Amino acid sequence: MSAEQSTGHIRPDGSKNTFPHPLDPLSVAESDAVREAILRKQGQNVAIHFRSIFLEEPPKKDLTIFLDLESAGKITSRTPRPARVAKVLYDVIRSSRYHEYMESWIDVKLGKEIRHRSIDKKHQAALTLNEFQQFSESCIESPMFKAAVAEFNLPGGFVVTIDPWPYGGPDFDEQAPRYTQGLCFAKDTRSGNEDSNHYGYPLPIIPIMDTYSREIVRIDRLATGGKEDGLAYGTHIKDIIAHCSPSEYVPELLGQPLRADMKPLNVIQPEGPSFQIDGHLIQWQKWRFRLGFTPREGAVLHDVRYDGRSVLYRLSLSEMTVPYGDPRPPFQRKQAFDFGDAGAGRAANNLALGCDCLGVIKYFDAVMTEPDGKASVSKNVVCLHEQDNGIGWKHTNFRTDRAVVTRLRELVVQFIITLANYEYIFAFKLDQAGGITVETRATGIVSVVNIDPGKTSPWGNIVSAGALAQNHQHLFCIRIDPAVDGNKNTVVIEESLPMPMSKELNPYGSGYEVRQTPVKTSKFFDASPMTNLTVKITNPQKLNPVSGKPVAYKFIPTASQLLLAHPDSIMAKRAQFAQHHVWVTKYKDAEFWAGGEFTNQSQKEVDGVADAVARHENVENDDVVLWNTFGLTHNPRVEDWPVMPVEIHQIHIKPSDFFSANPAIDVPGSKNTASVLAPESQSCCESGDVQKAAASHLQGSGPDLDPKSKL
Amino acid sequence: MSAEQSTGHIRPDGSKNTFPHPLDPLSVAESDAVREAILRKQGQNVAIHFRSIFLEEPPKKDLTIFLDLESAGKITSRTPRPARVAKVLYDVIRSSRYHEYMESWIDVKLGKEIRHRSIDKKHQAALTLNEFQQFSESCIESPMFKAAVAEFNLPGGFVVTIDPWPYGGPDFDEQAPRYTQGLCFAKDTRSGNEDSNHYGYPLPIIPIMDTYSREIVRIDRLATGGKEDGLAYGTHIKDIIAHCSPSEYVPELLGQPLRADMKPLNVIQPEGPSFQIDGHLIQWQKWRFRLGFTPREGAVLHDVRYDGRSVLYRLSLSEMTVPYGDPRPPFQRKQAFDFGDAGAGRAANNLALGCDCLGVIKYFDAVMTEPDGKASVSKNVVCLHEQDNGIGWKHTNFRTDRAVVTRLRELVVQFIITLANYEYIFAFKLDQAGGITVETRATGIVSVVNIDPGKTSPWGNIVSAGALAQNHQHLFCIRIDPAVDGNKNTVVIEESLPMPMSKELNPYGSGYEVRQTPVKTSKFFDASPMTNLTVKITNPQKLNPVSGKPVAYKFIPTASQLLLAHPDSIMAKRAQFAQHHVWVTKYKDAEFWAGGEFTNQSQKEVDGVADAVARHENVENDDVVLWNTFGLTHNPRVEDWPVMPVEIHQIHIKPSDFFSANPAIDVPGSKNTASVLAPESQSCCESGDVQKAAASHLQGSGPDLDPKSKL
Repeated sequence: MSAEQSTGHIRPDGSKNTFPHPLDPLSVAESDAVREAILRKQGQNVAIHFRSIFLEEPPKKDLTIFLDLESAGKITSRTPRPARVAKVLYDVIRSSRYHEYMESWIDVKLGKEIRHRSIDKKHQAALTLNEFQQFSESCIESPMFKAAVAEFNLPGGFVVTIDPWPYGGPDFDEQAPRYTQGLCFAKDTRSGNEDSNHYGYPLPIIPIMDTYSREIVRIDRLATGGKEDGLAYGTHIKDIIAHCSPSEYVPELLGQPLRADMKPLNVIQPEGPSFQIDGHLIQWQKWRFRLGFTPREGAVLHDVRYDGRSVLYRLSLSEMTVPYGDPRPPFQRKQAFDFGDAGAGRAANNLALGCDCLGVIKYFDAVMTEPDGKASVSKNVVCLHEQDNGIGWKHTNFRTDRAVVTRLRELVVQFIITLANYEYIFAFKLDQAGGITVETRATGIVSVVNIDPGKTSPWGNIVSAGALAQNHQHLFCIRIDPAVDGNKNTVVIEESLPMPMSKELNPYGSGYEVRQTPVKTSKFFDASPMTNLTVKITNPQKLNPVSGKPVAYKFIPTASQLLLAHPDSIMAKRAQFAQHHVWVTKYKDAEFWAGGEFTNQSQKEVDGVADAVARHENVENDDVVLWNTFGLTHNPRVEDWPVMPVEIHQIHIKPSDFFSANPAIDVPGSKNTASVLAPESQSCCESGDVQKAAASHLQGSGPDLDPKSKL
Repeated sequence: MSAEQSTGHIRPDGSKNTFPHPLDPLSVAESDAVREAILRKQGQNVAIHFRSIFLEEPPKKDLTIFLDLESAGKITSRTPRPARVAKVLYDVIRSSRYHEYMESWIDVKLGKEIRHRSIDKKHQAALTLNEFQQFSESCIESPMFKAAVAEFNLPGGFVVTIDPWPYGGPDFDEQAPRYTQGLCFAKDTRSGNEDSNHYGYPLPIIPIMDTYSREIVRIDRLATGGKEDGLAYGTHIKDIIAHCSPSEYVPELLGQPLRADMKPLNVIQPEGPSFQIDGHLIQWQKWRFRLGFTPREGAVLHDVRYDGRSVLYRLSLSEMTVPYGDPRPPFQRKQAFDFGDAGAGRAANNLALGCDCLGVIKYFDAVMTEPDGKASVSKNVVCLHEQDNGIGWKHTNFRTDRAVVTRLRELVVQFIITLANYEYIFAFKLDQAGGITVETRATGIVSVVNIDPGKTSPWGNIVSAGALAQNHQHLFCIRIDPAVDGNKNTVVIEESLPMPMSKELNPYGSGYEVRQTPVKTSKFFDASPMTNLTVKITNPQKLNPVSGKPVAYKFIPTASQLLLAHPDSIMAKRAQFAQHHVWVTKYKDAEFWAGGEFTNQSQKEVDGVADAVARHENVENDDVVLWNTFGLTHNPRVEDWPVMPVEIHQIHIKPSDFFSANPAIDVPGSKNTASVLAPESQSCCESGDVQKAAASHLQGSGPDLDPKSKL
């Protein structure tokens, strides 16, 4: 993944352009050069803890010029390019009590710092994997922690296992230094299997570590009571996990056979994929975009164009928060911001062929940063593949009985993150009808706490003996930076409203009104399904030649429940973005974070969407950004244990008078010749008939063959 | 499809049971025997027009006993069986002005009528295909119609084409006999292609036919004005389609090449499907159910059980209505009830291999009724196949980096209906995590009317020159007859609610309350996403052994917009079901129709869900039925023309403390060995490498092979 390899532009003469594209993530060589620049600048006598080194995207005003030239095929070696700049997040270690958290911007080519800032002590950087790892070690060495664990009378063969978590929002009166907290469990080691699931054995303590000094400063005790106990801490049983049960999920420990009747289902693309990849440039079915990847966001889509026309400047997941609804202290601090506190890119899984998607897969690696600043390559953090999503459009002429039917093919950009117990699967899906879907899947292991035997709780559900899965919410925010035929767009709120009965205007009461309200100044608003509220991102300078209306893309914000925490709570103050469904702001370079740049240990949202809206800027016929919050109130089911089935949510961003007809009307409706009839009786399922038929189709039988003739 | 072929039960000794299952649809032989019984009873001198002959499902009290015995494996040849009864809908043709519409119930085995009723003249039977066909013929012969068409000055090569529609709801003061109305278009015959799309050339007349006498009694004139014209009829241009454009969608007329860069994507199941079919009994991945098919509903799922435990007694689409929001008369009568007015089963497409789904497909035929009462077999009206829906659950142990990941396999029961211009794709999807999804896809051609050149309208969007696609709604209602571990269930409304800040109960404001409200008496209520309103169908007699809570299935009703028509309008009065999201009623045999049995030409909903709720019956710990209304307010986009991309909606019915763990935890997480890496550079896409690799995987390479080694 050197700079040379990651270029994306083909010169008019067909030769490779050796410049990296302005949106290419930093290569290993670039990242290492940036590290050197920081070390040079800080000098030998200063200890540095690197957090991240990544591309600072060029200012939009510069980049847009370049991208429009590129789209027009007018880039040459003499075309001016925005400077390649890296952003570096790092600590200068001043003492075991104080690290100065710094941000530097480095001109990559010159190896020189452009600017820097020292971050105010009131903010905390995101936690790194490195810090997470230190936490467990520190706990295990801590006498205070050992003493607490000793009270629990763990049976032989059980060891303590700790999941590091961000500290959450300190209480109003708390002056917290940088802290890490840990959720503790007992792990059954008797099987010798390292993957035995410890989450079924929760321990009612949360150790708190001073992250810099690595000292365990406090151990919070957790209530284990039920509804009869109110919020009281109470006392717990001495043999704290005696009433708990195994909760295994790895097949060799499951204690039940895996189902044996699921026959293989393979996705085969005999002619290869329909996409074309050149560095980070991806082209597929009239779509063209650049794939980015950042430590905080994971995969990002840049410069998304359809048939040469710009649709989005940038599409990303901006933030999410997971507040737990158990009012018993200290669970007011059980609230993760998985992007700001940890980083979706840093938490991205290394995907494996045949596991995370089917078909012909292209994987992308990412350049990550080690604590010493050296670049390392994380393999296969993003996968790209095509999939079939059923029928795309169909019409049967009932007079002739002729059906024209097409499939809906999608291109999927997927990445998966693990945050201790929990997993999120994120996907951007482009389709042939000009649509873009952003999909989230929640899976993994729900967070549980110990509950006394025989009790139940209003704050969650018992999903395994002694294990209370607390009610919680997942609130996601996606950031949509549109460029609907250019960067100057107007957001229009469209609602469908009933009309009064009136002899002149609605004599039979059958009519309804479609009302359009342009958003003139930055604002927030909520989903309104009962008025079919639709958000249209229009370009008022460009009218659709058929309808005469401004070209637009639209989405219907999902009316999912917003943040339930009390508006005066720390939980709510630090997650303003989770309190409205749609935020419309004026574009500002580097304003990417719905919950603000610094969420870790925040007590309020700073420079997030609420502050951006409060600037009261013009957003009419201007460079606008939309932020869409949606979520899942998750009151766990027993079925969510030990690993929960995916909960899927999708937002659909669709053209609305952007094209002059269904853009998928030219999708061929040809028969899929590899599909076969199921055998007529069960017994023949056992023979190789079906397989043979399938294989023969694979050998390139023409599209006009009747597959029935093969059986 | 004789009675012998369609049996479903295997005797304990392994031999086939020759009795039809009580839920098997009528065979051809049975249907024809029923016809004979009607003809015998009515005598030779009476003319009969048959509408439908289909199975009358046995009373639930009898059938439940049988199904429970069957589930326990206790059916023998001596087990008492509910009588097999057919329901027959037919007209006794009394005169050219009056047909007596009758319903008879026939004991199939005895060939004897059990009971019958003559339907009151105020109700109209659903329209049949036969009646639709007659409409066009009658128009073309009508001098009144010919005169109207002559005014339009159609250019050479254009002929009039008429789409028959139900008449809709007559106005309050109208005493309408049985009517059919027609939407008229001009069709360009110059290409000689029968599939040239006439919908792009709308004509501003609606002829009305007396359905019995086949006389065209009236021709309604349609306004062609824009927003400047109010509701006025005005005058239209003489050359009525001179400003219209071709709107072709069949590939040979499209006028643009089909996209050539979509490479095949095949679903291959080398070992065949994972499902087992025996007559209408379908078993797949611990699921077991019986597939039914009725002329009005299309596919129906009966006796849905998971691992031997009952979940649903019956699942079906009950009704839908499509009201148009254009207040200009006569569009107050443009409101279809596609189930009650026409019949989803009767409108079902004959599906084709490789077109409507991928993989290994099982098709089911249906026995339909000809106008003379004879049975005919409609081929392939339902398809059944498996599909992959991405990741089912995943967890990565971040300490060992071991990922366990499973796919989400679904079994799809799909059928597709065509109603003149429009298509709906309906699917029931069962998954491995115990979930059931009901999916609707709207596609086909949106309904357009003529609009004068240069004008735009508040009542729709111009999707093609001169063609105004009117704003409309699609409101669907699914009927869920649950049997969560038996027929006695209680519906509980669960809401997640904010809590006040309080020192004792919510000191930090982080808590939220989950409130459960059982439904005691039949009622309706609406979706409430801001309280996360969840409908739980519980069995209060059976507690989950882990959580201690009643076993349940749940769904979250979608907060989609309800009927917009004015509550005092005919449109609204005849579609009470479309005015609330959820209706809970006490089960009553044969109460299947959300909008009432007779929707065609109705002026109000009779014996629909609103009337069922009004019985104020006990529904607590009782045999309950749930009806869920959801929909789509469809203000057409230009992209919806000429055939619209699918608009997808899904309802997810999921277990909630029904199981004692994730039911998919035993799904094997084995690698899919047929997936391959995309070629590293574009040039190699052209070679056969990928295909060869794919083919070699197909030949049964073991699961431990690293597919990368093949490339």
